[in-house]
Amino acid sequence: MIIDCHGHYTTAPAAHTSWREAQQAAFRAGERPPPYPRISDDEIRESVEGSQLRLMAERGIDLTVFSPRASAMGHHFGDEATSIAWARACNDLIARVSVLYPDKFIGVCQLPQSPGVPIARAVAELRRCVQELGFVGCNLNPDPSGGHWTSPPLTDPAWYPFYEAMVELDVPAMVHVSAVTNPNFHATGSHYLNADTTAFMQFIQADLFTTFPGLRFIIPHGGGAVPYHWGRFRGLADMLGRPPLAESVLGNVFFDTCVYHQPGINLLFDVIDTDNILFGSEMVGAVRGIDPQTGHYFDDTRRYIDALQLTPGDQEKVYEGNARRVFPRLDAALRNRASLAG
Amino acid sequence: MIIDCHGHYTTAPAAHTSWREAQQAAFRAGERPPPYPRISDDEIRESVEGSQLRLMAERGIDLTVFSPRASAMGHHFGDEATSIAWARACNDLIARVSVLYPDKFIGVCQLPQSPGVPIARAVAELRRCVQELGFVGCNLNPDPSGGHWTSPPLTDPAWYPFYEAMVELDVPAMVHVSAVTNPNFHATGSHYLNADTTAFMQFIQADLFTTFPGLRFIIPHGGGAVPYHWGRFRGLADMLGRPPLAESVLGNVFFDTCVYHQPGINLLFDVIDTDNILFGSEMVGAVRGIDPQTGHYFDDTRRYIDALQLTPGDQEKVYEGNARRVFPRLDAALRNRASLAG
Repeated sequence: MIIDCHGHYTTAPAAHTSWREAQQAAFRAGERPPPYPRISDDEIRESVEGSQLRLMAERGIDLTVFSPRASAMGHHFGDEATSIAWARACNDLIARVSVLYPDKFIGVCQLPQSPGVPIARAVAELRRCVQELGFVGCNLNPDPSGGHWTSPPLTDPAWYPFYEAMVELDVPAMVHVSAVTNPNFHATGSHYLNADTTAFMQFIQADLFTTFPGLRFIIPHGGGAVPYHWGRFRGLADMLGRPPLAESVLGNVFFDTCVYHQPGINLLFDVIDTDNILFGSEMVGAVRGIDPQTGHYFDDTRRYIDALQLTPGDQEKVYEGNARRVFPRLDAALRNRASLAG
Repeated sequence: MIIDCHGHYTTAPAAHTSWREAQQAAFRAGERPPPYPRISDDEIRESVEGSQLRLMAERGIDLTVFSPRASAMGHHFGDEATSIAWARACNDLIARVSVLYPDKFIGVCQLPQSPGVPIARAVAELRRCVQELGFVGCNLNPDPSGGHWTSPPLTDPAWYPFYEAMVELDVPAMVHVSAVTNPNFHATGSHYLNADTTAFMQFIQADLFTTFPGLRFIIPHGGGAVPYHWGRFRGLADMLGRPPLAESVLGNVFFDTCVYHQPGINLLFDVIDTDNILFGSEMVGAVRGIDPQTGHYFDDTRRYIDALQLTPGDQEKVYEGNARRVFPRLDAALRNRASLAG
C-alpha cells in the first residue's frame, strides 16, 4: 500500500474557517468567541471528495496521515485559550474525517501552542488526540511566534516534558511551522523550508537523541535545505566535534518527499538512506498547480519516486514500511484492521 | 582563468581580530576604542600564504573575489559608529591584501550596517571602497539584527537608496548574513542557508528588478534551499501570479557553487542555467575539513564542477565569464591588466 505521511486538511468546510475568523475577531474585541458551528457529515464529505480523495484515487495513494491545515495553526495569534479552542476544533474535525473514511485518513494533531506558554501545557491535547481520537502523531511548531523565533531551540530542556509524553505514547512529531507575521518570510516559500533546515542543525548540535532514544521527528519538505547541503552538514558535524550524522541523528530523524520536481527527488534519494525517507506530498497544499514542464501536478510526488525505479524492497520502505515504523500506532491500526478483515 | 567569487578573509592577523574584541569591550564599557593596531605587510602575507594562497595554488584558482570574514561582520553589535569603524578597518585590510597580491585577490566590501540605521548611510563606505580602493562589489546583509529579522524585506523601498548607488557604481551585492544572537540558528549551519532562501523568495514576490533592471545579486551557498526546491519555487510563482522565474528573477540573480558534495553540485547544474552560476568555494570558510568519503576537502568545489564535464563554453562561463559579467569592474580590471601586460 501507499501511505502519504503528510497531508493537511486545507479544504475544511467554510463554516470551520469562518469560526476561526470569528474567534480572532472576538479575541481582538475582548469578547467571548461564538459557539463552534454545526458541520454536517455531508459538508465534510463534500470537502474532501472532490479534492484529497479524488487526487488520492488518481495517484494511487491508499492512506493519508492527515492533520489540520498547517498555515492556519496560527499559534502566534491570541493567547493560550485561543490556541486550545482552535486546536481542539481542528483536531475534532480531523477525527470526523477519519471516522467517515477510516481506510483513507488517519489523524495527526495540531497542538495548542502559544508563545511563552510552557509546552507541557500541550500534552493534554496530544494525549486526548492519541488516546481518545486514535491519532498517530502530532505537528510540533518550533516557532509558535510566527517567524520571530522567540522559543528556545528544540533541543532545549524546555521541550522535554512534551518529548516525555511523545515517547510514552510512542508517537512521532512532524516539525512544522505555521503562518508568519514577519514580512521577511513567505510562509510556504521560505519560512517552512528555513524551519526544516534550522531544526536539523539543532539536532546535530545537541545530544537530544541520547537523552530520548525513542524520540522520532519527521522533517518535512524534503528536509528543507539539508539534503542539498548534505556535505556541508557532514562537514559541520565534523568541525563541531559531533558524531557522524548517521550515528547522531539518522536513527531519529526522517524526511518526507515533498520536493516538487524530479531533480530534487533524485538528490534526496541519492544522499539520504531509504530507511529515512517517508513518502509525502502535502497534497492539497502549498503548490497546487500543474507544472508546464511536465503536464502533471507539481505535488504529485509519486511520479518522481516511481521514476527512480527503486528496488521493490526500497519502494516498500518509502511508500509504507518506514511510515509503519515511524508511526507505530498507524502500524497497529493497520494490523488491527487487517485482522478484522481476515 | 578560474575566478572564485566567494572568499572571505577568515585568517586575518590576530591583531585585527583582537582590536575588534577591544572595540566591543570599549563599547560595552562606554569608552573610546583603542587605536587600530599597526599590522605589517609581512603579517598580512603570512596570514594568506599558508592558507588561501596555498589552497588556491593547489586547486588551480587564479583569482579570489575577497571580502571580510562574513561571520565577523556582526552588524548587530554596538551602534552605527561601531559598525562604521569596523567596516572601514576590515575593508582597508582587504585593500592591503589586494595591493600585495594584485593578481590573486580583488576586493568586495563589508558594509557599515546597523539595525534600524537607514541603509543610505552605508553608501559612503561602498563608494569609498569602489572608487578609492578598487573594490568590485559588496556583501549586503538582509538581517543586520543577527537572526531576529527586524529589517524590511530586500524588496522594500527602504533599501532603494543603496540600490541606486549599486546601479550607479555598477557593482553587484552578495546577499550575506553574519553571526547570530538567536540561539535557534547556527550561523553557517542554518542562518546562512535560511537567508539565501528567504532573499530568493522575496525577489520572486516583488517587482524589484523592473524598478532596477541593472541590479545584480549573488545568492551564496548554492542559493540555500532554492535549487533543491526549484519545482516548489516555480509552482509558487505560478500560484502567486508572478512571471516565470526565468523572466522575473534570473536576469538579476546568480548562485555560487558553495555546495560541498557532488550530488548537490549535480542538482545545481541540473536545474539552474549555467549563465546564472558563478564558481565559488568560500575557502577558507565554514567547512574546513576533509570529507572521509572522498579524501578531499569538502570546500574544494572545483572538483565537483570538473566532474560534471561541462562543455568548454559552459565551463568558461562558470569559472570566469559570468563573474566578469556580474562584476563589470572586475572585468575592467582584468582587461586593463591584460592590456598593460600586452
